[in-house]
Amino acid sequence: MRAVDIIRKKRDAGELSGEEIEFLIQGATHGTIADYQLAAFLMAVVWRGMTLAEASALTEAMLHSGEVIDFSDLPGTKVDKHSTGGVGDKTSLVVAPVVAAAGSSIPPRRTPVTVPRVYVPMISGRGLGHTGGTLDKLESIPGFDVHLSLREFRCVLERCGCALIGQTPEIAPADKKLYALRDVTATVESPFLICASIMSKKMAEGIDGLVLDVKTGNGAFMKKLADAEYLAHLMVETGTRMGKKIVALLTDMNQPLGRKVGNALEVEECLEILHGRGPADLRELCDELSAWMFVLGRRTRSVAEGRELAMEMIASGRARDTFREVIGLQRGDSQIVDDPSRLPRARYRTRLTAPGAGYVTGIDCEQVGTASMMLGGGREKKEDSVDPAVGLELEKKIGDAVESGEALCTVHYNQDARLAGVMALLAKSFQIGPKAPPASPLVHKVIGSAETP
Amino acid sequence: MRAVDIIRKKRDAGELSGEEIEFLIQGATHGTIADYQLAAFLMAVVWRGMTLAEASALTEAMLHSGEVIDFSDLPGTKVDKHSTGGVGDKTSLVVAPVVAAAGSSIPPRRTPVTVPRVYVPMISGRGLGHTGGTLDKLESIPGFDVHLSLREFRCVLERCGCALIGQTPEIAPADKKLYALRDVTATVESPFLICASIMSKKMAEGIDGLVLDVKTGNGAFMKKLADAEYLAHLMVETGTRMGKKIVALLTDMNQPLGRKVGNALEVEECLEILHGRGPADLRELCDELSAWMFVLGRRTRSVAEGRELAMEMIASGRARDTFREVIGLQRGDSQIVDDPSRLPRARYRTRLTAPGAGYVTGIDCEQVGTASMMLGGGREKKEDSVDPAVGLELEKKIGDAVESGEALCTVHYNQDARLAGVMALLAKSFQIGPKAPPASPLVHKVIGSAETP
Repeated sequence: MRAVDIIRKKRDAGELSGEEIEFLIQGATHGTIADYQLAAFLMAVVWRGMTLAEASALTEAMLHSGEVIDFSDLPGTKVDKHSTGGVGDKTSLVVAPVVAAAGSSIPPRRTPVTVPRVYVPMISGRGLGHTGGTLDKLESIPGFDVHLSLREFRCVLERCGCALIGQTPEIAPADKKLYALRDVTATVESPFLICASIMSKKMAEGIDGLVLDVKTGNGAFMKKLADAEYLAHLMVETGTRMGKKIVALLTDMNQPLGRKVGNALEVEECLEILHGRGPADLRELCDELSAWMFVLGRRTRSVAEGRELAMEMIASGRARDTFREVIGLQRGDSQIVDDPSRLPRARYRTRLTAPGAGYVTGIDCEQVGTASMMLGGGREKKEDSVDPAVGLELEKKIGDAVESGEALCTVHYNQDARLAGVMALLAKSFQIGPKAPPASPLVHKVIGSAETP
Repeated sequence: MRAVDIIRKKRDAGELSGEEIEFLIQGATHGTIADYQLAAFLMAVVWRGMTLAEASALTEAMLHSGEVIDFSDLPGTKVDKHSTGGVGDKTSLVVAPVVAAAGSSIPPRRTPVTVPRVYVPMISGRGLGHTGGTLDKLESIPGFDVHLSLREFRCVLERCGCALIGQTPEIAPADKKLYALRDVTATVESPFLICASIMSKKMAEGIDGLVLDVKTGNGAFMKKLADAEYLAHLMVETGTRMGKKIVALLTDMNQPLGRKVGNALEVEECLEILHGRGPADLRELCDELSAWMFVLGRRTRSVAEGRELAMEMIASGRARDTFREVIGLQRGDSQIVDDPSRLPRARYRTRLTAPGAGYVTGIDCEQVGTASMMLGGGREKKEDSVDPAVGLELEKKIGDAVESGEALCTVHYNQDARLAGVMALLAKSFQIGPKAPPASPLVHKVIGSAETP
């Protein structure tokens, strides 16, 4: 088998066999196929796409390029949640402790397990461009360590029911290699490559089920609902073929989720949710995602029951307790749960005010994300470091009435070098009109179901 | 400027600016852009194509990545001929001495030049796959040296009016880099990349005009006339934009040109032509190409006049004299011109005979070329060495009547390891039917004219 023949086949719109895909991925992993051949292959995939069989084979090959964690000895199901990325998209920090808490009162080794426990082994990524990343948010908690070994990861998971870490070198090394190449060869935006990248890493977590939060709207990678839906179907099908329970929620990203954007600010908002407060949209989506995780993990029989359980975990304080415990075990300052003032705070604040009265009719969500990045809250390039304290607080969201001169947004900043640019960008981001627009749903669609094998 | 942005632009079907293309080619030449980025770019070009302005900018950038020879001090015009490659396609060895001979009786520095001389500074390539290459043919002449320095190249050209050498490191280094990448990334077959590769190298020869022999048919790279015509137009336009006189002849490659295929065998057939004998099709094409070279080099005012002059150069023996002189100056055995038995000969011969009577209705020209390659006459991979002596002699060509048991083809071979495979391939290559097919023209079309600026 020769790489050039496989590239040619894909270039000419042929369907690759599982062996051909395996050959490429093995070559990528072990460095026996040159980067330039991989790059040409990736561009040919962007061009010609893949069949479902090819996308599945690619995902399988990438999954098996590294270690697949085995949590089968843990007494319960293992379910994770993954979001394709957005602005203010902070649900992981809520759903992980909520879902884990639902089993935490049953000591796993002492009494027989009557209610199945759902474990959440969550391996997350960092933010890039206008979107945030779970790891950056977690690291704004003083001391929090996302770099656990797989051994430590297992320990925390066993104790708390959830653990939140970053990519480890053992997991899907082929994805690391290909992702680095895609980033510099303009081959990121292929649903097949995105699917294989996400699913190979998630399947390596040793999970039984996965809830996908596929974002769509002006702050998402997939601006168009049809594109998001295509990717969602692809991931659901690919995961299902691998024998996992997969469900994808197509959710709205036409404005930031919740009111806060920025790392410590988002942790703070998650704590509000865990205390039973916080913005309604964020609470709703966290409940919805948790509910589906309960269904996929066979903890509840219906989504409605799952929602009830999620709300109970918050109301009872058990999710909060679990989060406190996880933070402690991952060497973070667990006192932030009850005293968010211990989180890093920016030195300065300023406000963007409305130029006239009316209703907020639209928010350019990508621009809001970019504004937060410009403050230092995100990364322009992968190598950039992140300021945990800075960010934005939306005082008004779509549909809100606003008076002339009233605050639209509070900016938390440490350095004012780029402040003028940020304010100008934010001013352009808010559209104000005479009439409130019709409310748009937070969850557009659910794809796949727990009934899939 | 960043390579990734240029790749993305091409991926999204954008038109690149001259500066962007120049940036890429400079990066390729100096190694400041990674091979994987170049590979992704090349695949994006195969996908999206290029505008004429882009193809011209690419050709210009590749041309100026290296040395552009200046022959402006030589008293005459400089014209070359380039073929896109075929089987038995040996015209270079005839047209170079024919065209050069037409000026050789006028001592350039002694008497005023009344009839302009046409110099032929020919830099050629090697064969690959089913096609032969001029350098391999020349090297079958004992001692012939194709590796002259540019200084020696100029000396031979000045003395004889033509010189025939291989690629030098000074000429279009960007093409060397990109060609090596294209070869292993399945990005060879793009008319835009083919055009830039050919034209950048040819323009570096310091020529005023170029006659392109664009092959089409079952033995050519461009099997379809429309594809060949597209490439021909592209090359004519690109060269014309660079201020050169370009003409492209679309010629037939549905059977080998002439009767002999293989390196020394083809030299032998060229000598037949230079002695006023040889197969009619080869003679006709040599006359036609030479005639156009005379027109582009302003040596004759019409193609008809050019044909006359070409025939005169052969009939008078002056083309032969020039070839003898070139061979001598390039350290080859010039006695082969009058005694072809000095060329290497294969030890064994065998014949393929016709299974029944009728007419040859078709020949799979690519298979014939592959058969010659399998005998050792060509290269499967670039690194392979070539046996100068082996090859094929077609006893029958399309339209010829054949009796059952009569020879279709003589095979000249040295090793019989692959002989059975060769004979089987050849047997499949000849189609015999009850009726002679209508004769098909050798030159399908002429694109461009000497009138272009």
